[in-house]
This record gives sequence, structure tokens and C-alpha cells, in this order.
Amino acid sequence: MARKDVIDGPRNEEGIASALPILKQRFGDRFQTGQSFREQHSHTTTYLPSQLPDGVVFVEQTADVQDVVRICADYRVPIIAFGTGSSLEGQVNAPSGGVSVDFSRMNRILEVNAEDLDCTVEPGVTREDLNTYLRDTGLFFPIDPGANASLGGMTATRASGTNAVRYGTMKDNVLALTVVTADGEEIRTAHRARKSSAGYDLTRLFVGSEGTLGLITSITLRLQGIPAKIGGGVCAFPTLEAACNAVIMTIQMGVPVARIELLDEMQIRACNAYSKLSYPERPTLFVEFHGTDETVALQSQQFAEIAAEFGADPFQYTVDAQERAQLWKARHNAYWASRALAPELAALSTDVCVPISRLAECVAETQADIREHGFLAPIVGHAGDGNFHVLLLFDDKDPKGVSEAEAFLERLNGRALAMNGTCTGEHGIGQGKISYLTQELASALPVMRSIKASLDPHDLFNPGKIFRV
Amino acid sequence: MARKDVIDGPRNEEGIASALPILKQRFGDRFQTGQSFREQHSHTTTYLPSQLPDGVVFVEQTADVQDVVRICADYRVPIIAFGTGSSLEGQVNAPSGGVSVDFSRMNRILEVNAEDLDCTVEPGVTREDLNTYLRDTGLFFPIDPGANASLGGMTATRASGTNAVRYGTMKDNVLALTVVTADGEEIRTAHRARKSSAGYDLTRLFVGSEGTLGLITSITLRLQGIPAKIGGGVCAFPTLEAACNAVIMTIQMGVPVARIELLDEMQIRACNAYSKLSYPERPTLFVEFHGTDETVALQSQQFAEIAAEFGADPFQYTVDAQERAQLWKARHNAYWASRALAPELAALSTDVCVPISRLAECVAETQADIREHGFLAPIVGHAGDGNFHVLLLFDDKDPKGVSEAEAFLERLNGRALAMNGTCTGEHGIGQGKISYLTQELASALPVMRSIKASLDPHDLFNPGKIFRV
Repeated sequence: MARKDVIDGPRNEEGIASALPILKQRFGDRFQTGQSFREQHSHTTTYLPSQLPDGVVFVEQTADVQDVVRICADYRVPIIAFGTGSSLEGQVNAPSGGVSVDFSRMNRILEVNAEDLDCTVEPGVTREDLNTYLRDTGLFFPIDPGANASLGGMTATRASGTNAVRYGTMKDNVLALTVVTADGEEIRTAHRARKSSAGYDLTRLFVGSEGTLGLITSITLRLQGIPAKIGGGVCAFPTLEAACNAVIMTIQMGVPVARIELLDEMQIRACNAYSKLSYPERPTLFVEFHGTDETVALQSQQFAEIAAEFGADPFQYTVDAQERAQLWKARHNAYWASRALAPELAALSTDVCVPISRLAECVAETQADIREHGFLAPIVGHAGDGNFHVLLLFDDKDPKGVSEAEAFLERLNGRALAMNGTCTGEHGIGQGKISYLTQELASALPVMRSIKASLDPHDLFNPGKIFRV
Repeated sequence: MARKDVIDGPRNEEGIASALPILKQRFGDRFQTGQSFREQHSHTTTYLPSQLPDGVVFVEQTADVQDVVRICADYRVPIIAFGTGSSLEGQVNAPSGGVSVDFSRMNRILEVNAEDLDCTVEPGVTREDLNTYLRDTGLFFPIDPGANASLGGMTATRASGTNAVRYGTMKDNVLALTVVTADGEEIRTAHRARKSSAGYDLTRLFVGSEGTLGLITSITLRLQGIPAKIGGGVCAFPTLEAACNAVIMTIQMGVPVARIELLDEMQIRACNAYSKLSYPERPTLFVEFHGTDETVALQSQQFAEIAAEFGADPFQYTVDAQERAQLWKARHNAYWASRALAPELAALSTDVCVPISRLAECVAETQADIREHGFLAPIVGHAGDGNFHVLLLFDDKDPKGVSEAEAFLERLNGRALAMNGTCTGEHGIGQGKISYLTQELASALPVMRSIKASLDPHDLFNPGKIFRV
């Protein structure tokens, strides 16, 4: 169960009461304690209940971040990093109160090194901001988690999304970080070389640490050349297994698909209804290729042959941007199409990831579970990674609805773990998945706790997230 | 200076004297204390002097590893992991004595999941062993550091090599590890999902930790499909800058070269003399493409156009395996060709890595330094990564030769760091680069030390490596 992990932690009332006026004095209007600010900074796009911070600091530069950390450290007050609030597992909640550090004003693009395909940004830059800025350089930053998240948040959550199959996740695309640690010092984890064997990989330790080890103050990212040509297409398969086998063969043959997304029957039905489309209501792959005229043509032909081998309908394919948008419309509108199945219900977006050989089995068992319990719960998968999302629609006002949803999550995660998978491919642990992480990596938890204790001995950075100390 | 970091650490004579008979009792003939065993296990392919362990344990399974760690922990005796001894910066030396743990008999391939493109191996499996084993599956493990290193050693050193530009480094190709930690427990860092956001990335923390945080007992690796077609070619450029600019454009245009190696004039001269070839004695790129008939043809054509644009000689190219071997002969023999320039001298292989926009400048300044000091020191670069090696030939019997070599290293590393690079792209820190790591990541060292102290409080795992605690 997930909600049970959203419990209030101990509050250091005295420390908080002492720190707030000092923060006010230091930051003036950039420190806010009004209810609406506090609510806004605990609200995540999740079914988990909110836990409000005691105040919000809008930082504008590293020195601000250092001062927040030092003041909070002096009074033992929790510090919670906030990007855009698009995390899904309660990452920005404040179970022990404390100070939300809003990075939205720390949004400068510090440098772009076009020849080296890298750039350095402040954590408040969003991925859309960055790509808008980069447009004239012929470069882009590929990771696309759907939401227009901040790059700080994406780094902290080890985010990925539809094109991770081609470009990797944040783990693969962050070259270096600067981070303010518990003593208020700023450290640099690496420089701009594309590879290094110099010491412990602190970059990767902070990527995915969900704000529990320090506050990221700058991020050096790998960039990619904007593809000269993008091709996209769609085809329906007779069965889920056939679709997944086509994915496995595509990956195994090394066809460098940029995106390969699986929509299940219920998702297609929802999309047809919502966007007035008429796709066959069968498991369907949405595919995209990035390259030149020649390579995109080659790749799409290779994929079409593979799809045909597994009994797919003819592969509808185009290199025209408008036609591609039309073909991909169902995928782009998947979330809202799903919500429209039952607008009165709440939506719970969850993700698991399994080895791709188990994807068909894991999705099929999950569909059977959904049918058996009468849920509305469409499935969309980043099939090339074995990662899939269930958007579970449920009545969050009804305790029975909540407990049925939680029991479903428990079964879903148990299923993924039993298949050598993970309880989260890209959403992170936050509060919602603490109990599943405990099942998944029980033997490693003492090591994680030990690292946390050594870098944040007073448990001030985002307490109550990932695991309980 | 590098040799100055090879200093004897404190020896716990009493603990060592107590532990040796217990290890002998537990392991019998699998524990050896003879001089030749000890010498063999401190000998690295490096100019650094040897520091012998007090004994060598040949482990065969995880329980052996756990017992060694527990016995050594009880008596506070250092534990040094040993793969094949091909590390270059003194990684297997025993400055405080202790026990070398030889993994060569822990060399089972535990499972291959062809559909998921992954496998799990014990750390003593070498990369050639693995690729021989995989041949019938149509898969291969791409990372190729030159030597037939053990996969445990490659993991611990964060190794890479010629085709990292296409397939990444060990950081990108290790999915999960099991590791015996300081308390003798075995932990699992991840499962087999291709991506995960579940907790701290302990996999990446142990990759590159050079045996200082625990002993790796199994490694889950990503595999690749053996390319249907491999093409290879060579061309000489008018200048170093032209060659590097061709590399930058190749990378920027997203041409997925599998290898792109730069040999400088002195290296080509050495190769011509050694292999009786007649390459123009100018900066030369050796290039390889992996794909299908069509993609390899496309890529080689794209590269040939880029090379021509930068004034290269015509690109000599072939898809015939024998002809390719002939074209690449100079690259394959580079090391021995260099040694043959002065067989009486010792050879010091060192590496640095810079952003690729600085590669030409960094190599040119290094060549000027080599000329100015009259060194024989050919340069080979993994140009797509900005990583290059200097093989410095010097008289290691002559104190002046040694001090000149060390002064050269100091200048080389200073130059790379000044260009936002790293003191090692793939060899690791070991003992030889401790002082350069201190310069490179001064602000991060306290965090590294803190992690070390929390996971190995008595500094038993490979003491005196990476940094001094």
C-alpha cells in the first residue's frame, strides 16, 4: 500500500519557529509563508495527500541556496527542493514541515558548447525552455518525460520518457553537477569530458537521489543534433504478445528507433472516443525514427518488415510532420483520453519496468487483474525499455475505492518484482513507493541509509522520501 | 608527480600475523603466501613500483569472498581485489600489505538472456571469454579496453576503450551488481530492468570505485547484437586540427561511428617502421562502422564526405574483414610499434580526456611539449570521446629520466584540467593519479571520503587508492 507511507514525521517546532523569521529577514518577499504558497508547493500531480511546508523560498542564485541550507541546518529544519511540482510519488511533500526551496527563478542557461554537444543550466530551466533556447543551434535535449518538468527535478528523479530507448535516461545525459551539500558548501561532481574514470561517480549518485542528499545548483547536460529527418508510424497487432515480440526483435536487430510506444486495447478505445479516431481496438505500436532521409527510410522499412512478420496490420508511416502529428495524435492525447473515460474519477499514474522479454506477460497479467476487478485502467508502455504506465481511474473519495486501488498497486509491483523488474522505471520512489523499494532492494537499503547518514547526518534534505532513515 | 603517491601505508603487523593462519586453515592451497604469488599479484603493467600483499586467496564462490572479508575485518587486514592485473595506475598494489583476492577462478557465466540483451557473469570472466561464449547467440559485449581484462576489473575501473564512442563505457553497460560489503553481507544493487528510478544508483557508485567500497561478486551486463556488417577505413589529414574537426563534425551530425581513432605523426611513423607500412606520416583517423549493408555504406559515405571537406586524403575503406584487418593493422600494433622505437626504454601509458572541441589544442600542446623535451612519446586517441593516450618512453633506471617523466605527466594533466577535462578517461586513479584527482575535484573529495568512511569505516578495501582517507 502506498498511502500508508504518507505519514507525518516528527516536527522540530522550536527550530522551525526560530528559522522562519531569519529566512524572512534574509529573503524578504522571496520568502513566503502564506497558505496558498504552501499548498502550491506541496501539491503534486498524484493521488497522495498533501503535506505542506512551513514556508517557501524563491532562490535566485547559488548563494541563496547556500544560505537556506545553512540557516535550516543551524535550526535543524527540513529542506525540500521544488522544481515545477510535476513529480508523481509525493516527492515535494513536507511530512516534517520545513522549507520548500523553489528553483523556478534559478532558470538561466549558463553556457552552450555546441561543438561539444553540451550545455550547463540552472535547475529551474524547464526542458521546453531549454529546447526553445537551443533551436537555432541545431541541437536539442532529448529527454521527454511528458510534463514540462524542470531539469533539476528531472535530474533528481532520474526521469526519462518516450525516447529513452534511443537517448537513454537522465543518468546517461547528465555530465556533471554542482550541488550544495549539508554543510552549505557547493561541490562539483565532474567537468565537461564525455567520459572519466576519476573517482567515485558522484554525478550518478545525485541523479535520482530525489533531493535527499543535497540541492542541485547547476547541471551539465549532453545534447544531440536535431535530426535532419523524423519519420513516424503506427500499426496494430493481433495480440499483445505479437506487439511485444516485434519490439524485442526491433531492439535485438539494433534498429535505432527513437520512440516505440505500446498502447493497449483499452487505451486505443479511449483514444478513439476522445479524438474521434478509428484505430483498430487492438494492441498498437507508435514508432518514431530520427536520422537522415536515407536512414529513416531504411529503419522504417526494417520495422515494417518485422511488424509484418508478427502479423501486424500494414505499417502506416510518414515523414511529413503534419501527417506524423496526425498519426501520433492518439499517443499524444492518451492521458486526457483516459481521463475522459470517467471524468468524475481520480487518476493514479503509476509505472513499473521489467526486462522486455517479460513485458507481454506483465502487461497481460495486469490487464487480467484490471478486468477481474472491473477497473478502468488504460496502459501505455515505453515498450523498448520494458517500462509501462497504468492510469488507474478510481474514486478517491470512497475508502473502498482507495483500498482497492492500493491493493492493485501492491499486486502490480509484486508482479514486476517477481519478473526481475523494478517498482519504478522513471517516476522515482518519493513516498508512494517506499514499501516497494524495500521489497525490491532489501539487501542494498543499509548501504543507501549509510550514504544518506554520512552526507545528511541530521536528515534535513527531503526527509521521509525514498526510505525512512 | 605520480610515484610520490606510491608510499607505504601503516601496516597492522599484529592483525596480519593473526589473519594469515586463519586464512590458510579456511582456504588451504587456495591461500598462498609464497614470494612469486605475492609478486605476481602486485605487478601491474605500469611504471609504478610494486608493493606486495602478504598473501593471495583464490576465491571460487561468494561464500569464499564473504569469508575473506569477515576474517580480514576481524583482524583489520587490507583486502585488495585482483582480476588479471592489467590496471595501469597501481590499483592492485598493497601499500599497507594485506590479502589479494584473486577472482580468476570465479569465472562462470551465470546466465545469458538473449531476448533481453543481457547476461550475468562472475567477476573473473574476461571480456574475450565472454565474447567467445556468446558467439553462437548472435550477441557480443562491446567494451574493449585493449587488454583481455576481467569484467570485474573493468567494472571497478570504469573501463572503456576504442568503441565507447558508440557503445559507452562500463558505466553505461553494467545493469546491476552484487557486492560483498565491509560487514561480509552480499548486496544486490539492481535487477534486470533496462532502466529504474528506484533509490540511489549504487550500481554506478561501485562502477569505478576501484575496489575501495566492496568486492564485486557478480555483474549483469548489457549486450549488443553482433553487427551484420562491419566496415572500416583509414585516412590521413593535413593537420591535427583538420582531423579533430572531422571528428567533431562526424559526432555532431550523429553519424554512429563504432570507433574513431586518432594516431599522431610519431605514432604513424612508428607503425610504418614496425609493420612495414607506408602510411603518410600525418595525423590519421582509423574509423569503423557497425550496421547492415545499407547503413554501413551510408555511414562510410557520410564520413568520407566530411573527411574530404577537411582536406583529408581519399578515405580508404572496405567491408571485407581481411582487408579491414590490413587497413587497421597499424592501429592494432600501435603499442608494440611504439615500444620498438626504443626497446631499451620503459613505457608509461597514461590517458587524459578533454571536451572534443579542445582535443586538437590539447594534443598539439602535448606534442610541442614532447618535442621540446626530446621525448619519444607517440599519441593515440579515442577521438570521438576526446580521450587520448600518450605512451611515454623513458629510462626508468635513471632518476633524471623518472623525474622528467613525472614532470611531463604533471604538465599533461594540468593541461587537460585547464581545458575542462579529466585526468583520466579510462585508466582510473589508483595510486598514480591521486594528486591529479585532488586538483580536479577538490570540492567533491570530502563527499567521496565521507562515503568511503561510511561504507568501509576501517579503510580495509584497497587502502591508499583513489585518495588517502
